[in-house]
Amino acid sequence: MVVANSSSPSDSINNNCFPCSNDTMSLSNLSNNSIIDAQKGDPLAFGSYWKQMSDECTVVIKGWELMSYYSDSSNMCWFMLPELRDEIERLHHLVGNAVTKDKYIVVGNGSSQLFQAALFAVSPSDVSDHPINVVVTAPYYSEYKNAINVLHSRMFRWAGDATLYDENKPYIEVVTSPNNPDGTLRVPMVNSLAEGKLIHDLAYYWPQYTPINYEAGHDIMLFTFSKCTGHAGSRIGWAIVKDIAVAKKMATFVQSSTMGVSKESQTRAAKIIAVICDGYQNFKSNESELFFEYSKRLMRERWEKFRGAIEQSMVFNVTKYPRAHCNFTNEISETYPSFAWLKCEEGIENSHHCLRKLNICGREGERFGVDSKYVRISMLGIDDEFNEMVKRLSNAKKE
Amino acid sequence: MVVANSSSPSDSINNNCFPCSNDTMSLSNLSNNSIIDAQKGDPLAFGSYWKQMSDECTVVIKGWELMSYYSDSSNMCWFMLPELRDEIERLHHLVGNAVTKDKYIVVGNGSSQLFQAALFAVSPSDVSDHPINVVVTAPYYSEYKNAINVLHSRMFRWAGDATLYDENKPYIEVVTSPNNPDGTLRVPMVNSLAEGKLIHDLAYYWPQYTPINYEAGHDIMLFTFSKCTGHAGSRIGWAIVKDIAVAKKMATFVQSSTMGVSKESQTRAAKIIAVICDGYQNFKSNESELFFEYSKRLMRERWEKFRGAIEQSMVFNVTKYPRAHCNFTNEISETYPSFAWLKCEEGIENSHHCLRKLNICGREGERFGVDSKYVRISMLGIDDEFNEMVKRLSNAKKE
Repeated sequence: MVVANSSSPSDSINNNCFPCSNDTMSLSNLSNNSIIDAQKGDPLAFGSYWKQMSDECTVVIKGWELMSYYSDSSNMCWFMLPELRDEIERLHHLVGNAVTKDKYIVVGNGSSQLFQAALFAVSPSDVSDHPINVVVTAPYYSEYKNAINVLHSRMFRWAGDATLYDENKPYIEVVTSPNNPDGTLRVPMVNSLAEGKLIHDLAYYWPQYTPINYEAGHDIMLFTFSKCTGHAGSRIGWAIVKDIAVAKKMATFVQSSTMGVSKESQTRAAKIIAVICDGYQNFKSNESELFFEYSKRLMRERWEKFRGAIEQSMVFNVTKYPRAHCNFTNEISETYPSFAWLKCEEGIENSHHCLRKLNICGREGERFGVDSKYVRISMLGIDDEFNEMVKRLSNAKKE
Repeated sequence: MVVANSSSPSDSINNNCFPCSNDTMSLSNLSNNSIIDAQKGDPLAFGSYWKQMSDECTVVIKGWELMSYYSDSSNMCWFMLPELRDEIERLHHLVGNAVTKDKYIVVGNGSSQLFQAALFAVSPSDVSDHPINVVVTAPYYSEYKNAINVLHSRMFRWAGDATLYDENKPYIEVVTSPNNPDGTLRVPMVNSLAEGKLIHDLAYYWPQYTPINYEAGHDIMLFTFSKCTGHAGSRIGWAIVKDIAVAKKMATFVQSSTMGVSKESQTRAAKIIAVICDGYQNFKSNESELFFEYSKRLMRERWEKFRGAIEQSMVFNVTKYPRAHCNFTNEISETYPSFAWLKCEEGIENSHHCLRKLNICGREGERFGVDSKYVRISMLGIDDEFNEMVKRLSNAKKE
């Protein structure tokens, strides 16, 4: 039940609430009675782009290739393919969302693994009977708590909402920006004299979701291929780390848990990121749209439709975001989060129940550390599901 | 520092003892002075087979494929591709080394992850101040201890040699058979009235290493693609589990840690296993050798050369194995472990030092819970390295 700020499929599995989406992009047969699963964060929306780019992104792997455990014996992250590291650096340089110069990159099996690895790396190494507290400002990503609790670690423990933290003890604060579930930009919030370590989860800090308004240079920054390009099935995440000792510990954790990271996935991620970067480098305007332009347009169009439906419904409110200058697109633009964070109007107590009447399943506010007035729904489903969801929302009426 | 009974590359990384082998099968330029790293277990020896079979095993993955988190929503292991599950079942049916009927399969990022997942699944769920003891008979796989210790878990703890276990408290015993490092067949050894849970690590229970003399049907059995076919870079392991509650907990652990397993690797593993099985099914004797015939012949030839060299050297002894009937090949045959477990002759105290004089690096006996008279060396390096190692060993003299 863990991904670092990327919606997990866990609910639908654990609650058996819904059949889960399969790995297809065929039209679904949605009737009015069919249930739309908008509680999970499977990022299928960008599949249409990769279908267009299918040939350029194809990888071919022969039977004898990629057999060794090793990828780069000169790197402390010995299981990371050099071509993936190079493409990750190139992508951040292109987008301008994170500093990689003089930093260390650690690849992981999704950012889920790197979230646990980062906690391991920054927790005190003299393990005592008092695990260090881990806090996140509410509403916080629903899976952090499970990711921590499942390990039953003597090193760290879940300690809830960062804004309520009042212990005079060392702590780790996770800063999720843009935030999952609510899309807001976040800064550290703990008000304590005790020593605090920070982990920045920047899974959604990409131009399709939010204006890129600064080049992040935090101590530990987590990113995931899943939310950048939509390739969740590859399980590729990476951390950009300032301190080599922390990076080494994170690599040790990945080594200890999984003895590295799939080379097939690394090869494919490197190829796909290269295609994105090549597109910008060799820009041919008449041929095909570039990835972040395509994905941002898709998100904008979805959000415009979505806001229209919400306004008609008179049941829900949705967060409004400030406009800001994006250094990447060089224009003033809005925020288009991968989730909508809905709050029901006065007089309604439970947003999740409201949605269920429309046969839409969202994820309940309580799971994010707030109350049942809130619910999170995915904006990244396939077109048919998204359009049907919007249609139903626009017809929602207060009872 | 963890793989379930598959040699890890960790040493060479942590000790900076050696440059690590790269993912090539080109000839290495071995001089008498060059160091041979035989302490790691990178299974490169079978690469020559996959080079021959390169085209049949090629996988092609397009840009829009395998994007979803989900693989099979009808399965409690929702991230496992059905084609991989089918091929795993087919392979065990072909080889006859493990029962899969009425069992549950859980895929993991290597058997390393499934080792931790199994410990999580069979530990008492009411986490107390007294973690359950985990024991393994010495000499035991050097990475189990690290795999456990790195988690600093309140659920389970490393408790050393199973044969010395005398606490009247519940325990988990790991049974590694064939054993790493010494290739012997193993059975549970704890002598206690307390309740014990078993985890069988069967990473090396394949025909190229040992006669298949029974169809294993233990409660939890771990296997890894790395040691079966030599594709260590894919990080694919699987568990065959009797109890659905245990299987579900293991799947939850994999979900919590990495939100599933690379679909690219799963696709490729399914393809390669299918090629092996198809080979036996459509056996054409004149065309190409079948995988387990090829790999067993390779192991036999290497062991014959190796034993010859060891006998000449008068410095080391190597374990002798009983011959047994193999149900798969239907012949009486020997055991050809993936590691040689060497003991130095009387009057020599440290096998590792002895090897170092020959510019061969093995893994010290102490790491496996025994003394410095023992050392483990890999039999799975590339041909050039193996041949050079044998040449040096045959020239070894008592000083």
